[in-house]
Amino acid sequence: MSRPAFARWLSTTNDVTRRFLAAGRVPGLINMAGGLPAPETYPAAELAAIAQRAIEQHPRDCLGYGPIDGLLELRDALAERFSTESLRLGRENVLITTSGMQGLDLLGKVLLEPGGLIAGQYPTYLGALDAWKSRSPTYRALVLEDTAFDPVAALTGAQFAYTVPNFSNPTGKLVGLEMRQALVDAAHATATWLVEDDPYGGLHYDGAPLPRMIELSSRRRRTQVYDGPVVYMGTLSKEIAPGLRIGWVVAAPEMIEALTMAKQGSDMCTSGVTQRIALGALESGLIERLQPVIVSLYRERRDALCVALADHLADWFDWEVPVGGMFVWAVARDPSIDTDRLWSVALEAGVCVAPSSVFDASGQNRRALRLNFTLNPPDKLAEGVRRLATAIRMMSKEGYA
Amino acid sequence: MSRPAFARWLSTTNDVTRRFLAAGRVPGLINMAGGLPAPETYPAAELAAIAQRAIEQHPRDCLGYGPIDGLLELRDALAERFSTESLRLGRENVLITTSGMQGLDLLGKVLLEPGGLIAGQYPTYLGALDAWKSRSPTYRALVLEDTAFDPVAALTGAQFAYTVPNFSNPTGKLVGLEMRQALVDAAHATATWLVEDDPYGGLHYDGAPLPRMIELSSRRRRTQVYDGPVVYMGTLSKEIAPGLRIGWVVAAPEMIEALTMAKQGSDMCTSGVTQRIALGALESGLIERLQPVIVSLYRERRDALCVALADHLADWFDWEVPVGGMFVWAVARDPSIDTDRLWSVALEAGVCVAPSSVFDASGQNRRALRLNFTLNPPDKLAEGVRRLATAIRMMSKEGYA
Repeated sequence: MSRPAFARWLSTTNDVTRRFLAAGRVPGLINMAGGLPAPETYPAAELAAIAQRAIEQHPRDCLGYGPIDGLLELRDALAERFSTESLRLGRENVLITTSGMQGLDLLGKVLLEPGGLIAGQYPTYLGALDAWKSRSPTYRALVLEDTAFDPVAALTGAQFAYTVPNFSNPTGKLVGLEMRQALVDAAHATATWLVEDDPYGGLHYDGAPLPRMIELSSRRRRTQVYDGPVVYMGTLSKEIAPGLRIGWVVAAPEMIEALTMAKQGSDMCTSGVTQRIALGALESGLIERLQPVIVSLYRERRDALCVALADHLADWFDWEVPVGGMFVWAVARDPSIDTDRLWSVALEAGVCVAPSSVFDASGQNRRALRLNFTLNPPDKLAEGVRRLATAIRMMSKEGYA
Repeated sequence: MSRPAFARWLSTTNDVTRRFLAAGRVPGLINMAGGLPAPETYPAAELAAIAQRAIEQHPRDCLGYGPIDGLLELRDALAERFSTESLRLGRENVLITTSGMQGLDLLGKVLLEPGGLIAGQYPTYLGALDAWKSRSPTYRALVLEDTAFDPVAALTGAQFAYTVPNFSNPTGKLVGLEMRQALVDAAHATATWLVEDDPYGGLHYDGAPLPRMIELSSRRRRTQVYDGPVVYMGTLSKEIAPGLRIGWVVAAPEMIEALTMAKQGSDMCTSGVTQRIALGALESGLIERLQPVIVSLYRERRDALCVALADHLADWFDWEVPVGGMFVWAVARDPSIDTDRLWSVALEAGVCVAPSSVFDASGQNRRALRLNFTLNPPDKLAEGVRRLATAIRMMSKEGYA
């Protein structure tokens, strides 16, 4: 007798993320696929000391069950961190999540009926597609660069809209101020939740940061605490270290309440140990001290990648130099270049990149590659691009078949 | 314009767990509701030192993204821990979860289509009901004490069966060897996944532990690694401290694969910091050293609660003395005692208990109370029971209305 089938969504899923993470452990392979930080930036000694003190000084916070919505002091610290003159936040606006990914999972749980519609910035962060897959949503692609893009039409009827305005994953694009305002206006006009996923906001290499959409939303109507439609999400993964698995959601209290109910049945509460470490890192100024070091390292790596691309890939691909984030998005000029095929040929040539198909809910986009520049030093990035060029030459001999 | 509705399941949920956790922080209130360990047993100094060493000595394991299915060394350690002569386990049988609760959430994700059928030991752990609520399942109640209980009929057609054989939450009952064998046989005969949720297995106060159902299953057919239908779940929450949020699933490799895909979209991976602390606690023998201390403390508290019940509650309630776990299940003799009503009267009298309705997917059981004995010392347990008796007397004057 055979066992009952697994839920249907599982057969439509992929293990790309797992392969990206695994590629980091293959000897000799250059991993430009995942969105991995440079491990040499992890402040291990400081965090070891913070962890030791946190557990000794706050044993019940660290080791007991905590409040589902998070440690009060950490919620207060984040409310203060993101408050501005118009954006008034209290702890009731803040939920601590076990990673940014959990925020996306919880959002799907509280908003998506089976088959529900998501209006998602296109192409779309792979992890977000993963997070919602078990609820079998449908997607409307928001192509913000399209001159015919109509924000109100795009949001109408959607359960929520999903965007990564700062250095989008996968494209690295910065959504401009005018489009931010248009999206916020549309969210208010259509009463649609507008997700502003912002893991990369701190990784800004050129020019000044743009205002957050939740800030633009708060300027429309002053309230005691924010109660507008923007759902702002963040994480410590890119600011300190992914291994803490600490993220947050900043949103209207009714949304925080709903997400908290979903979190109750997801992991009950986030680890007190990692929350107390996060709080220690915030309070000690570690994050502020670390930020310029990381930004300067990543800026150098972005530049190195773009030089290597110009040297070796300009015949086949177009790209823009991103002003922040972790990725360059390279689009093949020749539509016969199938980047799924290139992905596997490149693996044999010793470099792992991310093909565009995984950032498309329909899996059909095979024209582009996402290249990460934060994990590897400049010489390895250059070698990775050379290997990629070798792979393209191998494919071109076979007619890109 | 009003916002779109939240998903329908949210309107059917409750915030009981949150209120249980919150009750722990109300001054003067005696909290006998939650399943909370005694915080004085948390080995804070040892864990602080383990955490410090872990981050310093294994910064990339602790601070980077880890494998979705868990740290290899921790999976290996758990495979070894649960292996027996017949139960052969490799790391492919083990998934690390961010708390036992996450294991339940992931199980729902990989097995439940909307409206899918769960055969659940009745009454049922509240957290399990919470974990699956967002997938809107239906329930078949497994009343194992019912003389007419037919395991094969009970499991047939269910997506999976859910049991807590060791000191069931909420009833504290130990499922006997004969019933364990019958459930395992039925799981094999009907090819149904049989969940053996075992957070309390280490909290055994009298007599010898019974074999696990996954062990009984492995005796039916010797395989290279276990590939049978039992899905065994555990957690460090009751063995060391809940704040680590470390749990595990031990199951057939195909189940571990499916759960890993679901975990990818839930939190990507469990914190490396907490996994390395868990590994350090396992390797240093801390768990073994702690276990007899905890067991002896909780045995004394169980006895104190049962004495207080005999002194103050025997006129109204029946109960069995549990041989393990964290709870006494007290059933009202008079069916006109509504334990939902008693719950709120008791709150006013200064004691928080758990009413039976929350352990019933239909919410209809209003005949019993779950009383926790692990959190409070004997004198507080006695005072809590006196307050409960006061509440009953207050209700009886009003005709239990």
